[in-house]
Amino acid sequence: MAASQEQNLVVMKFGGSSVAEPDDIKRAAGRIVAAREQGNRVVAVLSARGKSTDELAAMAREVSDRPEPREMDMLLSVGERIACSLCAMAIHDLGQQAISLTGSQAGIVTDSSHTKARILDVRTDRIREKLADDRIVLVAGFQGVSTDSRDVTTLGRGGSDTTAVALAAALGADVCEIYTDVRGVFSADPRLVPDARKLSMLSFEEMLEMAASGARVLQLRAVEYARNHGVRIHCRSSFEDAPGTLVLAEDETMERPLVTAVTHSEEEARVTMTGVRDEPGVAGRIFSTLADANVNVDMIIQNEPVEPQRGADLSFTVSRDELEAAVSAIRVLDLATGIQTDERIGKVSIVGAGMRSHPGVAAKVFETLGEQAINIEMISTSPIKISCVVAADRVPAAVKALHEAFELGADAVRREEPAGAEHRPTVTS
Amino acid sequence: MAASQEQNLVVMKFGGSSVAEPDDIKRAAGRIVAAREQGNRVVAVLSARGKSTDELAAMAREVSDRPEPREMDMLLSVGERIACSLCAMAIHDLGQQAISLTGSQAGIVTDSSHTKARILDVRTDRIREKLADDRIVLVAGFQGVSTDSRDVTTLGRGGSDTTAVALAAALGADVCEIYTDVRGVFSADPRLVPDARKLSMLSFEEMLEMAASGARVLQLRAVEYARNHGVRIHCRSSFEDAPGTLVLAEDETMERPLVTAVTHSEEEARVTMTGVRDEPGVAGRIFSTLADANVNVDMIIQNEPVEPQRGADLSFTVSRDELEAAVSAIRVLDLATGIQTDERIGKVSIVGAGMRSHPGVAAKVFETLGEQAINIEMISTSPIKISCVVAADRVPAAVKALHEAFELGADAVRREEPAGAEHRPTVTS
Repeated sequence: MAASQEQNLVVMKFGGSSVAEPDDIKRAAGRIVAAREQGNRVVAVLSARGKSTDELAAMAREVSDRPEPREMDMLLSVGERIACSLCAMAIHDLGQQAISLTGSQAGIVTDSSHTKARILDVRTDRIREKLADDRIVLVAGFQGVSTDSRDVTTLGRGGSDTTAVALAAALGADVCEIYTDVRGVFSADPRLVPDARKLSMLSFEEMLEMAASGARVLQLRAVEYARNHGVRIHCRSSFEDAPGTLVLAEDETMERPLVTAVTHSEEEARVTMTGVRDEPGVAGRIFSTLADANVNVDMIIQNEPVEPQRGADLSFTVSRDELEAAVSAIRVLDLATGIQTDERIGKVSIVGAGMRSHPGVAAKVFETLGEQAINIEMISTSPIKISCVVAADRVPAAVKALHEAFELGADAVRREEPAGAEHRPTVTS
Repeated sequence: MAASQEQNLVVMKFGGSSVAEPDDIKRAAGRIVAAREQGNRVVAVLSARGKSTDELAAMAREVSDRPEPREMDMLLSVGERIACSLCAMAIHDLGQQAISLTGSQAGIVTDSSHTKARILDVRTDRIREKLADDRIVLVAGFQGVSTDSRDVTTLGRGGSDTTAVALAAALGADVCEIYTDVRGVFSADPRLVPDARKLSMLSFEEMLEMAASGARVLQLRAVEYARNHGVRIHCRSSFEDAPGTLVLAEDETMERPLVTAVTHSEEEARVTMTGVRDEPGVAGRIFSTLADANVNVDMIIQNEPVEPQRGADLSFTVSRDELEAAVSAIRVLDLATGIQTDERIGKVSIVGAGMRSHPGVAAKVFETLGEQAINIEMISTSPIKISCVVAADRVPAAVKALHEAFELGADAVRREEPAGAEHRPTVTS
């Protein structure tokens, strides 16, 4: 039976925790087969099983102090292949025809930036041929083949989400379903806020701000790709059938609530440079040096110097695991009289597309935190987000207070069920 | 510096035990770098690490009762890729440029018989390009790509030896060095015969007979390929520098001793069919049925029936792990009145190119075993081999007696050093 062109095409992506154990693989296989038997054509993208990517990276460190990036990609790419071939076997046992493809076989063409390659092209001929042949197609996530040297490349953290979204875009899929161990995107982390609600839909822009400010359901890069190519994402649980959270273009969402969610991050660190020379171009030199060192800077604050001869104070925040690289990089520059660091900071943010037209939101955030005697150390805003740096040990209280102040736990069209006790954090690869 | 055309080209192959642990990988990397620094161009073929192929196969059985062969190949092929990428990293740390290639990237083109593919072609363009670019080329053994569907295939047991020999043939290498955990090929298993001697050279034909009759240093199929393409093999230890055993065309060996080695196998089983119908074509049906069931039959004996109406007796030996499949296959045929099996048998063989012109060898074998009161249950011969089936528990005594009777432990041009205590059995993949 050849698949007809009228059938819906769905891309499903299963994260590492959804294929970790044999029973997980069988469960994923069952979901894929169910989607096929509902009449869809199915392409499924799989991550490596559980911690297997970490285990492969550990093997590399056992034989080399500085593993060659090209060989690291050859090594790391096997994890997703293992998951895909095992899942194809399980699908066969359920009576459907499946075929697993490597990133290269699936036509994921990238540049040659090993360990952090960018997708340049998706050549879907082979996938389309297999779909027309009534196969379920499984694609190894996180990897591709470089256009010039035909070497295996990997896409870096969050790569499998990006593979799924890129395939959904190239194939014109109706939806890209991202299966994880959480039920969707919540109005706050249910571990901190027991009455946090699962959101039924939100916009790409909101999801981007949430991903950037601590929500770990979807990777930033995949959401950007989805927004740029108009791919609808459905984040859902691989453990239950209920719908999860749809991520859509803003004009598809039904309403724009003032605030959609509270997110937080406890993995921040701050660097303060004192006595920075007050000359044109100094800030540019500092931040281009940090970029060259692959340090992602989040917030930046510079105070005008009171006495110009003493220099200015400049503070910025980075992810805690990049702190050491940041300090080493700026120390070499020798542009400041002192460098202090603070690893006891966290960040709490509110995100909402409706904020754009409501100027009072920031004031309400500051008041709410003030009532809790939580000191705001840094502030950054976008049209749909307000982030505050606070002491790390005050983050939980800040999240709870903001969630309550903006009534995110109350019933609303976009906020459905209370979070279950089974909530676990998810890490995508 | 580009590699000049005058340089010697050597293909080196490292088995699973030679790359099992991080230190083993570093040792293999050291050997490869040493060969390069001696001025050779180097292609190295690696097996999967230690037991990793078995572990991958176990994963498949966890998710499927009957794993799809195409997906099994996708799964199993990752083991050699892991070994190659890790070894390339270790080589980089030693200051040489290495690149790892999958079987497909290395141009190993096979048929589509998944899990037991045959090599159809070796397209060496990419390897030659990398060698010309002064790289050490590492190739994942045991695998290729199918010519029609561009799927990953595996070559079955012993596949990495075959990969190495096929590359040596296609590249016109001066020698194919097979590194294992034994020092070479011995005149008998040193665990049974303490004064067994390492052979400095032997012919392809002798090696073929030895591989077929129990010696496990080299895989039969790789030796056949080497003989057909005239590839010189050097079997040697990855743990020490001394030369091992050269396997050459017979006209290159310096002399033809009567007997070169005693080999044995304790993994035999015998099937006896009684009352087999005495009609033309019956034996043909039995053995073609066994072939269809993938059972390799070794020796066959049929007795002419004394009373034709009672039928004939037919016995044959198979590897013990194929016994069940053999019995199931012939039971369905319903051509015999009874089927008996015996798993307590073993086989002892003597191999030697000089046997061809010395008819008295067989008599001496039978006498020697008779003096030890070892009953010979079946006999098979080739121009350069005599094999006897004996009771499994008499195999060690038979090996010792034959080794002594033919004076294989004495000093001779082709028999060098006594075996060390470090001898361990090797399994190639």
